Amino acid sequence: MCAASLPDTATFPFETAVVAGVGLIGGSVALGLRQRLLARRVIGYDANPEVLREAQALGVVDEIRTSPGEWLRAADLVVLASPMRTLSPLARDLAPFLSPAALVTDVGSVKSGITAEMEALGVRQFVAGHPMAGSERGGVTHARAALLENAVWVLTPGDHTPLTALSRARTLVEALGAAPVVMPPDAHDALVATISHLPYLASLALTHMVARDERLSLLAAGGFRDLTRVASGDPRMSRDMVVENKAALRGALARFRRQLERLEADLDDPEELLAAAAEGKRTRDSLPVVKRSLLPPKHDLVVAVPDQPNQIGAVTQALGASGVNIKDIEVLAIREEGGALRLGLESPEEVSRAAEILRAEGFEVRGRG
Amino acid sequence: MCAASLPDTATFPFETAVVAGVGLIGGSVALGLRQRLLARRVIGYDANPEVLREAQALGVVDEIRTSPGEWLRAADLVVLASPMRTLSPLARDLAPFLSPAALVTDVGSVKSGITAEMEALGVRQFVAGHPMAGSERGGVTHARAALLENAVWVLTPGDHTPLTALSRARTLVEALGAAPVVMPPDAHDALVATISHLPYLASLALTHMVARDERLSLLAAGGFRDLTRVASGDPRMSRDMVVENKAALRGALARFRRQLERLEADLDDPEELLAAAAEGKRTRDSLPVVKRSLLPPKHDLVVAVPDQPNQIGAVTQALGASGVNIKDIEVLAIREEGGALRLGLESPEEVSRAAEILRAEGFEVRGRG
Repeated sequence: MCAASLPDTATFPFETAVVAGVGLIGGSVALGLRQRLLARRVIGYDANPEVLREAQALGVVDEIRTSPGEWLRAADLVVLASPMRTLSPLARDLAPFLSPAALVTDVGSVKSGITAEMEALGVRQFVAGHPMAGSERGGVTHARAALLENAVWVLTPGDHTPLTALSRARTLVEALGAAPVVMPPDAHDALVATISHLPYLASLALTHMVARDERLSLLAAGGFRDLTRVASGDPRMSRDMVVENKAALRGALARFRRQLERLEADLDDPEELLAAAAEGKRTRDSLPVVKRSLLPPKHDLVVAVPDQPNQIGAVTQALGASGVNIKDIEVLAIREEGGALRLGLESPEEVSRAAEILRAEGFEVRGRG
Repeated sequence: MCAASLPDTATFPFETAVVAGVGLIGGSVALGLRQRLLARRVIGYDANPEVLREAQALGVVDEIRTSPGEWLRAADLVVLASPMRTLSPLARDLAPFLSPAALVTDVGSVKSGITAEMEALGVRQFVAGHPMAGSERGGVTHARAALLENAVWVLTPGDHTPLTALSRARTLVEALGAAPVVMPPDAHDALVATISHLPYLASLALTHMVARDERLSLLAAGGFRDLTRVASGDPRMSRDMVVENKAALRGALARFRRQLERLEADLDDPEELLAAAAEGKRTRDSLPVVKRSLLPPKHDLVVAVPDQPNQIGAVTQALGASGVNIKDIEVLAIREEGGALRLGLESPEEVSRAAEILRAEGFEVRGRG
């Protein structure tokens, strides 16, 4: 399905969309715009001509541009999708050429800065956005429209954002298959500081505590690996993200410190600490399993696996042979060791069916549908 | 294979072993002692008669006792395996009846307190131990000798521990199939404070930050779930562990705070922060994957999975059909979303073979052998 194959008389929500920065997210937006017939033509803009040539060769964009200019006036949709640290300079480069009627949005993971920048530049029809999607693999070669499908896409209108702009942005996000969630920029930034940027710093701090200590890192199994996984992300992207959001992150760090201090004080009050541990467990156990979809596979099955070769294979093969679709899989490693797999399935019925299949194979299972 | 079926003339390293506290670990030790012919008879001692009856019915122990007494004098091996908070009272109950020749050890996860307690009680042949094994499922019904096989088992002799006692304890641990690692009690406690108890408190603190906030917990995907997984452990066991180790834990908390402060200061020095992020990534990526075994499956294969149903099944089935043994599996969720599986395989050869099989099935793979 491709816009180019349609007659010129077809109508599109947007005539000319410009995607500025054609990487994983920008490329996925461009593909979504084309495949879902949301724009008659999609122009890719990027400082790097090689990236643009690749994007064009892959059919991600219809046309390419390497410098800003009068051609931008035709755009009725502009999506800024360059790396975080280049978003503001990009906005300043493009702003002089933008039509006042163009809907402008971005896809950065911090929202206050770019909102203020756009306001200062006088770009009225701007609605900042943050599609909460990503991939371990970056770059336009891994872009795909499906990346954005069912993803939470936060939209953060500022005090002066026209309601019509917000409404257009919301419609666009829905048309791309994602789920818009609207909140003010500072609320968004405080939120990602808490659930993403603070955990990253905490993970980094823990990682540094075992650096250059062979004995510590040898014994750092299970739980420690879980807690430091995010420290394995791209250092530059992670750094840019936390630096851009440093104001909100400082707030989150202060709250984190207070929580730690309270827990430390509770070391002398074991009853209080038990209450805090029980509350923590309740909260953690009620977190939805959100991965690729807004509809979390809450239908979990826990399978005990004996310490024998190829038990993961035995479990997944037994289910696969019966057509059970495993949506998510996790090796449970509570405290030092595992011994169980958590499977995320599609429905309570699938949980029952999988439990039956696995019991017949001699596995011990525990479901929560 | 069972000691009872052997003639009375067979020789055993220990004549009479007592396992005090017959839960998951105590039961597994008892089973190991019996199945590996390390003790002629294994006596289970527990305050709970029901647990003892179950242990006897399951063939975990040969005989059972519910109160301390003269019968203990016959023991040449005593393993204290009750929950952390009852270890010291247990030691005080048993000490008056112990033979001076008996090797005494424990399996608690904090070592300074019990070492001091035993010294005060005059139990000379005591060597504190910590088998770094566990399971999501507790209790004697889940005990099995294999739980301890290939596990790291830290032994922490005190200043006055006789060398012969240490040597006997080391031989016992090896005979049970585990890997002894010797270090002083305070070194052990500092180590577990850093890699286990501090991560637990940090995880609990993060969890509390999203409690009672629906929006935060809805969006708390991927990385946040990883960082808070250990907060889902048993609250009482977790509480007892951190309270018992509070001195070392306070030291670890102080170092953690300094790391966080340094990172917070680096928010104003992006070059420094980038260096810290890069160092963190190097350290995290070099952590061994230790789960159930001392021999980490360092042979990883990363498989990109498209956003389509049953991709986990497709990957594991393709490998299972070809006899590739998947030792570990992890859904990679760097930043918000996944899109890749990490498989832990047995050897670089298995990585190459699996890569070939998966490429033939149309998967994109990246290995590190």
